[in-house]
Amino acid sequence: MTVQLYCFGESGNAYKCALALVFSDTPWQARYVDFFNGETRTAAYRALNPMGEVPVLVSGDEVLTQSGSILMHIAAQTGKLGGSTKQEQAEILRWILWDNHKLSTQIGTVRFLMNFLPAEKRPEGVVPFLQGRLKAAYTVLNDHLAARDWVVGDGPTIADLSCCGYLYYPEPFGFDRKDWPHIDAWLDRISALPGWKHPYELMPGSPADRT
Amino acid sequence: MTVQLYCFGESGNAYKCALALVFSDTPWQARYVDFFNGETRTAAYRALNPMGEVPVLVSGDEVLTQSGSILMHIAAQTGKLGGSTKQEQAEILRWILWDNHKLSTQIGTVRFLMNFLPAEKRPEGVVPFLQGRLKAAYTVLNDHLAARDWVVGDGPTIADLSCCGYLYYPEPFGFDRKDWPHIDAWLDRISALPGWKHPYELMPGSPADRT
Repeated sequence: MTVQLYCFGESGNAYKCALALVFSDTPWQARYVDFFNGETRTAAYRALNPMGEVPVLVSGDEVLTQSGSILMHIAAQTGKLGGSTKQEQAEILRWILWDNHKLSTQIGTVRFLMNFLPAEKRPEGVVPFLQGRLKAAYTVLNDHLAARDWVVGDGPTIADLSCCGYLYYPEPFGFDRKDWPHIDAWLDRISALPGWKHPYELMPGSPADRT
Repeated sequence: MTVQLYCFGESGNAYKCALALVFSDTPWQARYVDFFNGETRTAAYRALNPMGEVPVLVSGDEVLTQSGSILMHIAAQTGKLGGSTKQEQAEILRWILWDNHKLSTQIGTVRFLMNFLPAEKRPEGVVPFLQGRLKAAYTVLNDHLAARDWVVGDGPTIADLSCCGYLYYPEPFGFDRKDWPHIDAWLDRISALPGWKHPYELMPGSPADRT
């Protein structure tokens, strides 16, 4: 069965799920969400996902939202990328929650403010504040990867895919891979996996379409 | 076996877990973390939790961090508060992730900036920006609770405990229960459950101790 992923190129949260579908060999189709023209605020979209967010995964009768839930679902369905012991599964959940709590949420906001919002609408002070908090998060991840190749266990899991979701984007948001050598090497390991593609190649839509 | 929860009164993330321990009849002890004097930045604390966060649950040889992981662990261990079907379990995970992504993270930051940081250190512009984002999150939760008593299923689960974690605190952070009638009624339902206590009564430490 082919699943459908509601996504758009700029969404790092959708990208996490697209990578999981690719790396788990799940047949999937991208369904483009016209986020920048307000599709997620329409009644039709809210009927699909009352939280109003991207991504959404439609798999037969099932409609899943929240990238972390979708990642866990893909791992459970395919038996891939989900760790091999109960302890690894618990660690994976912990890192996905951490990513949602401390990493991706704040990168998404900073990147949006710096790149996708007209400068005159950008609220004063928010970007440097969130960048300060993000520095603490990059430190935690970089230190964690100092002595290990993957976030959990001995191979790639959905924990890696959750944490890397925003880190391949070219737009500036205050993250330079050179400053974080262990994150840098880990991103190289992920992008060397068979089937890996850059977000703007894996999903429809990119800033180039709007210029 | 008595578990140990590293916590302090002001931590809404710890409060979620303390409530889950109470409502699941799990014997527990509070281990006070002196957050405001820097304990979470010490080497000893980082050895316990490299993410540097509160809460931590110590259960025999297991050390768990991230409130969402701890909540899932308590539900799995006790068979309580975890929903009764696979679909409910998936919904619970979805709402815990949403809470981590959109609700508790941002309330925690706003509440800290408005109440626990000296006014001269408060960055300009951040509070109104995050309050704007929180209004969208309160709307999602309030609408969800319009036609139902609990976040998932027909009774209280860890999804309720995750989402309510910061909403009983008295310090101002831009949330007035009167503005959100369905959230208000739901908070009354939770606080009517046997054993419920206010965060400053359930866990050691409160602003009153520092005045």
